[in-house]
Amino acid sequence: MAEPRIRLGMVGGGEDAFIGAVHRIAARLDDRYELVAGALSASPERAMRSAAALGLPTDRSYPDFRTMARSEAARADGIEAVAIVTPNHMHAPVAEAFLETGVHIICDKPLTTSLGEARRLRDKARATAVIFAVTYNYSGYPLVRHARAMVQAGELGAIRVVQVEYPQDWLSQPLEATGQKQADWRTDPARSGAGGCVGDIGTHAWQLVHFVTGMVPEQILAEATSFVPGRRVDDNVQILLRYGNGARGALWASQVAPGNDNGLRLRVFGEKGGLDWRQEEPNVLTWSPLGDAPRMIRRGTAAMNAAGQRVNRIPAGHPEGYLEAFATIYSEVAAAIIARRSGSAAAPALTYPTIEDGFAGVAMVEAALRSSRAGGIWVPLEA
Amino acid sequence: MAEPRIRLGMVGGGEDAFIGAVHRIAARLDDRYELVAGALSASPERAMRSAAALGLPTDRSYPDFRTMARSEAARADGIEAVAIVTPNHMHAPVAEAFLETGVHIICDKPLTTSLGEARRLRDKARATAVIFAVTYNYSGYPLVRHARAMVQAGELGAIRVVQVEYPQDWLSQPLEATGQKQADWRTDPARSGAGGCVGDIGTHAWQLVHFVTGMVPEQILAEATSFVPGRRVDDNVQILLRYGNGARGALWASQVAPGNDNGLRLRVFGEKGGLDWRQEEPNVLTWSPLGDAPRMIRRGTAAMNAAGQRVNRIPAGHPEGYLEAFATIYSEVAAAIIARRSGSAAAPALTYPTIEDGFAGVAMVEAALRSSRAGGIWVPLEA
Amino acid sequence: MAEPRIRLGMVGGGEDAFIGAVHRIAARLDDRYELVAGALSASPERAMRSAAALGLPTDRSYPDFRTMARSEAARADGIEAVAIVTPNHMHAPVAEAFLETGVHIICDKPLTTSLGEARRLRDKARATAVIFAVTYNYSGYPLVRHARAMVQAGELGAIRVVQVEYPQDWLSQPLEATGQKQADWRTDPARSGAGGCVGDIGTHAWQLVHFVTGMVPEQILAEATSFVPGRRVDDNVQILLRYGNGARGALWASQVAPGNDNGLRLRVFGEKGGLDWRQEEPNVLTWSPLGDAPRMIRRGTAAMNAAGQRVNRIPAGHPEGYLEAFATIYSEVAAAIIARRSGSAAAPALTYPTIEDGFAGVAMVEAALRSSRAGGIWVPLEA
Amino acid sequence: MAEPRIRLGMVGGGEDAFIGAVHRIAARLDDRYELVAGALSASPERAMRSAAALGLPTDRSYPDFRTMARSEAARADGIEAVAIVTPNHMHAPVAEAFLETGVHIICDKPLTTSLGEARRLRDKARATAVIFAVTYNYSGYPLVRHARAMVQAGELGAIRVVQVEYPQDWLSQPLEATGQKQADWRTDPARSGAGGCVGDIGTHAWQLVHFVTGMVPEQILAEATSFVPGRRVDDNVQILLRYGNGARGALWASQVAPGNDNGLRLRVFGEKGGLDWRQEEPNVLTWSPLGDAPRMIRRGTAAMNAAGQRVNRIPAGHPEGYLEAFATIYSEVAAAIIARRSGSAAAPALTYPTIEDGFAGVAMVEAALRSSRAGGIWVPLEA
Repeated sequence: MAEPRIRLGMVGGGEDAFIGAVHRIAARLDDRYELVAGALSASPERAMRSAAALGLPTDRSYPDFRTMARSEAARADGIEAVAIVTPNHMHAPVAEAFLETGVHIICDKPLTTSLGEARRLRDKARATAVIFAVTYNYSGYPLVRHARAMVQAGELGAIRVVQVEYPQDWLSQPLEATGQKQADWRTDPARSGAGGCVGDIGTHAWQLVHFVTGMVPEQILAEATSFVPGRRVDDNVQILLRYGNGARGALWASQVAPGNDNGLRLRVFGEKGGLDWRQEEPNVLTWSPLGDAPRMIRRGTAAMNAAGQRVNRIPAGHPEGYLEAFATIYSEVAAAIIARRSGSAAAPALTYPTIEDGFAGVAMVEAALRSSRAGGIWVPLEA
Repeated sequence: MAEPRIRLGMVGGGEDAFIGAVHRIAARLDDRYELVAGALSASPERAMRSAAALGLPTDRSYPDFRTMARSEAARADGIEAVAIVTPNHMHAPVAEAFLETGVHIICDKPLTTSLGEARRLRDKARATAVIFAVTYNYSGYPLVRHARAMVQAGELGAIRVVQVEYPQDWLSQPLEATGQKQADWRTDPARSGAGGCVGDIGTHAWQLVHFVTGMVPEQILAEATSFVPGRRVDDNVQILLRYGNGARGALWASQVAPGNDNGLRLRVFGEKGGLDWRQEEPNVLTWSPLGDAPRMIRRGTAAMNAAGQRVNRIPAGHPEGYLEAFATIYSEVAAAIIARRSGSAAAPALTYPTIEDGFAGVAMVEAALRSSRAGGIWVPLEA
Repeated sequence: MAEPRIRLGMVGGGEDAFIGAVHRIAARLDDRYELVAGALSASPERAMRSAAALGLPTDRSYPDFRTMARSEAARADGIEAVAIVTPNHMHAPVAEAFLETGVHIICDKPLTTSLGEARRLRDKARATAVIFAVTYNYSGYPLVRHARAMVQAGELGAIRVVQVEYPQDWLSQPLEATGQKQADWRTDPARSGAGGCVGDIGTHAWQLVHFVTGMVPEQILAEATSFVPGRRVDDNVQILLRYGNGARGALWASQVAPGNDNGLRLRVFGEKGGLDWRQEEPNVLTWSPLGDAPRMIRRGTAAMNAAGQRVNRIPAGHPEGYLEAFATIYSEVAAAIIARRSGSAAAPALTYPTIEDGFAGVAMVEAALRSSRAGGIWVPLEA
Repeated sequence: MAEPRIRLGMVGGGEDAFIGAVHRIAARLDDRYELVAGALSASPERAMRSAAALGLPTDRSYPDFRTMARSEAARADGIEAVAIVTPNHMHAPVAEAFLETGVHIICDKPLTTSLGEARRLRDKARATAVIFAVTYNYSGYPLVRHARAMVQAGELGAIRVVQVEYPQDWLSQPLEATGQKQADWRTDPARSGAGGCVGDIGTHAWQLVHFVTGMVPEQILAEATSFVPGRRVDDNVQILLRYGNGARGALWASQVAPGNDNGLRLRVFGEKGGLDWRQEEPNVLTWSPLGDAPRMIRRGTAAMNAAGQRVNRIPAGHPEGYLEAFATIYSEVAAAIIARRSGSAAAPALTYPTIEDGFAGVAMVEAALRSSRAGGIWVPLEA
């Protein structure tokens, strides 16, 4: 029998939003959620108009998130989960409001705009039974799961070197000066946080390394730079990583690298082999066993391991992309929520990123900026 | 205001089906359809079980398609459209049943298993106001739209040469002998039609060439071969194409080409330039203006033309794939259906493939087999 | 001790020639030859000027090839081998002149401009002890050797399908009308032979298939087309191949395919796996064992087999290219010539292409044009 | 008229040497040099045996470099230039010996094993009229020249970010423990210098950045690591680069990165566009003008600029590789030497790397190790 769909609300994601629409498709793709309520904009008028365009019921289209949290809590058929897709500075207050009413949370990244906020939120979440996911969506790709399982199984041997990069080019010019909505808030420290590029995409790269290798650096050193005149946040960052086991890494994220759309790439090198994965061609993972020919592991083939197969949807050669990977995070959260409905704990195999990952991302941003502002020195990470 | 979702039924697509699940995701992705009824298997028992698993209402889960057509026609809230995702031999009888009740049709390819059937169905459809789409889904990719618009605008000049190929490897061994469901019916002439590889994937390649170039060959010559011992249909086909304007082409489709998952690739060469697109990396189109450096047109960038932008969902570098392209066909059909609700004709810009494309595909299969059986001779196409 | 360098002469290859310069570098690269004599142009004046520019001794710079053959035969230190790099129509008379004086021959392809000539030359060569190589240079690439050895060792199982293509774009416009030297003679039937594209590059593709698979088709069917107005030879050709063992193939060569420089690509599919090699990225061969992940065999690594290693020069990752592969043919011929000096037969492992391959290429051109002129029918190959 | 070949000697490069054979081919490829003398090994016996195998005249096959320098200086037909291809620690003494006799020098990199030595040698060379080239061979690739000319012409605007990497995998295990000759001396500080990976390949990456951008960092910060147990030099290095104009860069070199043969890659990002070039596929340069589709600049096409054309040998699509690029350095040095013969200064357009580049490379190694040993701090470069 089909389990009833999860009743989902959304905060943010109104007209012209990018990530809100992505979350809605992701929620819909595997048919585990039904969007039933929303406070889709900080402007009440725009919120109502956006809700109407989406066909939300009038009585569950809210002018603000506090009204929504309160009203939904009062309904027998109130939302079970909320997607938080506002600009970054609103993640914490919105999450807190829903945490208090026991609603499960799916929050976009970065978790918050300050480390203090992140710690407070994390501690609150730890004290509740609420499921708190953070949409580090790149960890939803089947071949990223494959890579992670290979590392866990020791197929690379001890990890020696990690190279991760995330170049884009969309902020190569002062786009924020044109009023373009995405550029506007993402380069405004008040709304995006002190980290620009490092927060917006550096955190994705950071989480991906951790997700695949399981390792956390002991120290980092960062150079965060603003190249575009007038820009108030960094638009390029280079970070060196020192791991406790002696491994070394480098992370580069940029929004001023012409020719790059969304070039997230992870390379992991161990004693016994190397892995190479690129987000823009996510259906192939190159596995290079030391001393033998590199293999192209293609999503959906017999060469993909069980961890990959578990989140695979369609046959090899029928490319899955960004929305599918995002939907996988939603569906894993759905499985966890459904398990809670019947009182059981979430299945142990679920690997969606949580508020712990969210906190770690904010801690990285804080440390990177601390290092950079001190002239590029080695710093530890806050925990 | 949001237009109410289209009430969709489905015939076929029960347990273990591949393409039925794809159609359901495609219908859901842009939130324009609601699946409300189904006859999901030729086995009534399996049909009911599959419907329950999908959460269909019990009273609209039908044991067979005729009951479904009749019952739904009698309801005020009956389905407006039906997705036909059965094995090929059932497409015609199912489509006829729903044509008679005025339900819009979204039918998988190939349209039918014989040319006579295809002609009869096409003629019937022409005589009604019903929308009849055939899911040649590869024409839904944004960069395929871009390519088509370039050809239409004369940016390649007169077309000289077309090279299209569609290699796979999944039937390199007698998989049908193992009882694997997909291999079983797709290599059975009674259910898939006389064409094996040529019908299953050759038709996709054929339609893609036509979709992009607008051209139809006057004559073709085919070599259809069965390489796997015991196989009852072709598993490799090579076709030469002669166009009326002097252009020449070649089409190769294979299911016995190790190393290929779903390698559909189209190359079009004109007097002024060439295009190259691969389905497995669908977010890039290579455009080579004669005498200048090839350009990589990336989906979602400013270099993509209006025809591509119109069906684009997410920003460049966030890869879209097979399901998104499939969903685009569904959403264009939805736009046409919604236009009919209000009495207006479908918007002229809609470019989803129709029963005319379906007929053309069956005509190609018939001509290819006629040519091949006669020893590889030039034959015209039936119209 | 170093074996003395082979005394080499050259006919053709004067100012503005492309392939003559390539032969000279190829001869020099491994230091096995010394160019000591030449008749470098059909114009005596240009011949002498070209020789001076190359630093040839004045007394061995000849105004015509007959004088050269006669004079060199009369010298104690006369040439041991001659490179024939004239336009195609001169290959036969030049080769005959040197055959008669017992000089080893290294002749560019295609061997001759008519099948009758090719047969006569082959029969003469068979009757002598002269080494007669034809520079099908693409067979000199290490990974082509690797591929050939894999097929010979049965690692692909029985071959089912061969796809070979050789697109270029340099003749997309009537370049011959501008007087450009290469275009001028290569599109002139009197100098290049009746085959244009099919002779110039189609023969390379044909030989490569044979070299790697060891198979020769029983029948072929060709469509040779001239797209550029005023062109006197074909500039695009599509050929279907039928092998005696049931295998099927397709060959496409074009000089009007914008975006292609020299796109020779060979794919071979057998029961147990597939191979894919591209001349423009010759340092990787993709080997796809059926049911497992494709492997990237990189030149110079431990994954390259002995046949590849034998002709490998430098370590992996230091790309070898066209000149190196060409030089390998020269060096294998040198090894054969040196073996003859001491009276021994050529080492059995030498695999340079000979006049037999040259004849086979001309036979293909003849059959392809015969097929095409008859309207695209199946024809056997002359032997 | 052909200019007589340059009389070349060689020190080092005997049996089993890798780079000596490369230098010999490079010298021969364009026919501007004749190898006439050598002291090919530190072992007199091996030196003589190696010379015999190469066919050097017995009286110019020397047991040691000092004898060679003295004897050649005494001959009327003595060598004009010497190639120094010994292990690194011998570069300085050999170069000094030939500097004193006024012989032009072509020295492999890194220039010396200590900064003091490098400075002394540079100062001596500056005081003579001798041509002193250092074979940073990667600057010989036509598309590297194209890239450099683009930057010089301002086509990228002000440079903001440079990413250069040079991963290999051949030292992933303790190969030196097996006695393999290359690994043996390259990991021995006494012969290779204190820098392992950073000196062997990091210097190539460093020079390439400088060659293309013209920029030199003001400060660098390095992490040099030895991953393989027992290794006496670094086998992985990550370096951050700070330029005076605000630009930022990162350099990564590794010899323990499985799946990488010789993966030198340079990316340069400016205000107006980006460049991407990979040594392993050197015949394509990707040029991404900001806001437009990336272009694939292919070597030998009309899209390649004059700087590239000047060192181009063969048509597009006929791949040139490592040896050709190396030969270009040799040929440019030859042009300079020939200009000296007639008393004129070297043509201004000659761009081969000199002892100044050699010094800069050693200075980088010294600074990188200084930074790394101090715990990874920012340091200036010695000049």
